[in-house]
Amino acid sequence: MNKDFKEIQSVTIIGGGNVAWQYNNFMTKLGINVNCISSRGEIREEDLKSDLIIIAVSDKAIAEVAGKLRIKDSILVHTSGTVDIEVLNKSAENYGIFYPLQTITKGIQIDFSNVPLCIDANNEKSLISLKLLAKRLTDKVYEINTAQRQELHLAAVFANNFTNHLLGIAKQILERKNIPFDIIFPLIDQTIAKAKQNNPFDVQTGPAKRQEMAIMENHKSRLEDDEREIYEILSNKIIKKQNSLKQNK
Amino acid sequence: MNKDFKEIQSVTIIGGGNVAWQYNNFMTKLGINVNCISSRGEIREEDLKSDLIIIAVSDKAIAEVAGKLRIKDSILVHTSGTVDIEVLNKSAENYGIFYPLQTITKGIQIDFSNVPLCIDANNEKSLISLKLLAKRLTDKVYEINTAQRQELHLAAVFANNFTNHLLGIAKQILERKNIPFDIIFPLIDQTIAKAKQNNPFDVQTGPAKRQEMAIMENHKSRLEDDEREIYEILSNKIIKKQNSLKQNK
Repeated sequence: MNKDFKEIQSVTIIGGGNVAWQYNNFMTKLGINVNCISSRGEIREEDLKSDLIIIAVSDKAIAEVAGKLRIKDSILVHTSGTVDIEVLNKSAENYGIFYPLQTITKGIQIDFSNVPLCIDANNEKSLISLKLLAKRLTDKVYEINTAQRQELHLAAVFANNFTNHLLGIAKQILERKNIPFDIIFPLIDQTIAKAKQNNPFDVQTGPAKRQEMAIMENHKSRLEDDEREIYEILSNKIIKKQNSLKQNK
Repeated sequence: MNKDFKEIQSVTIIGGGNVAWQYNNFMTKLGINVNCISSRGEIREEDLKSDLIIIAVSDKAIAEVAGKLRIKDSILVHTSGTVDIEVLNKSAENYGIFYPLQTITKGIQIDFSNVPLCIDANNEKSLISLKLLAKRLTDKVYEINTAQRQELHLAAVFANNFTNHLLGIAKQILERKNIPFDIIFPLIDQTIAKAKQNNPFDVQTGPAKRQEMAIMENHKSRLEDDEREIYEILSNKIIKKQNSLKQNK
């Protein structure tokens, strides 16, 4: 183990969004000395004396913020699931990634000990420092390189963003007939539990899986245009995937 | 309360699929006298002497099975989320619906006490009998008419079938980079928890919500054709829905 690493005791967070809020809250609880500053104003020399500088701004603003910084001893990280680690290579000698794989909303304190934290760094001593800090925050620390991190983020779009939109549509459909949304909560829970324990494709159910064309036509006739377009493409993709699984058996 | 109703003590289940298996298993555990018969062979007179006859076959086979039956005293039900209650009106004087709103797999015994059971009947005494039985099976009994039941089934396609397919894609993406599926489980759990507690559209996150076009183009370039088509349509629908929410504020 590299003895040269530094234990992180003070942190500066640049940014005022969801991730900045969450890190600030949780690190402060752990007794870490946290200094939060805006990404918009001038960044003063004394703000950059913390052991760790976290750029927690939107993906498209990271390069601009990094461009303002020249950091010598501290470690500089960003928190994005998509932006390359090398965006930081002109701003610091020691740099890395501190990416929380969780859907984070400002104002809702989440249980951080269950959040997978994906870390990466440009050298071993920085990686050790980041890992030690990460392990204070959560039980789930993963060393993930840029290519893997980008793939993770892409998978998360399907598992989180798209799934959420589908649940919104389900609620919208139920409300049109005055049916409470919570009637389908047990179904949602069971769907998720089964998908986690299996390859989801192997436990697919429903009219598309069974190729019940008459039911699907009836369903489509009762949907609004935007809902119907989603219904069509997802049904077609389920049919195609299930057929290809059958052929490979 | 109608005093004329009959307490159901014996049940005949016609069919050998997932729902038949599940009802047979769970009712037998409760001490109900269950007789399971095939939908394909001849149905004998003595099989139809139970208090309740359940047609638990695929949607498209219900009419055919019902066509073989002429039932006088017993209650006849089917278990479908989509087929009209009136498909049974020539086969029995007392008929109804016994639709479990859950994703059910043969061989996996689920905790039925958490399954919403949707019931309906063509007269009050049958409805009372079915409700009393339903309440022995689960805490969640809903009286749902045919129009509502069909809408429920449609909502369930979005919340269950389509969500499951998206989780399959997420796993497929991760496996291409040797990342374990379970790294995104906390994200999935949080997504579901947030969607339940809110209108999902109001807690939407991700690149489509933020209209980060460059990230979305990058994502699409890394997807297979079928994945990309789903990505495109869902991203476009999220953008459209979020814009319409903004305009209505």
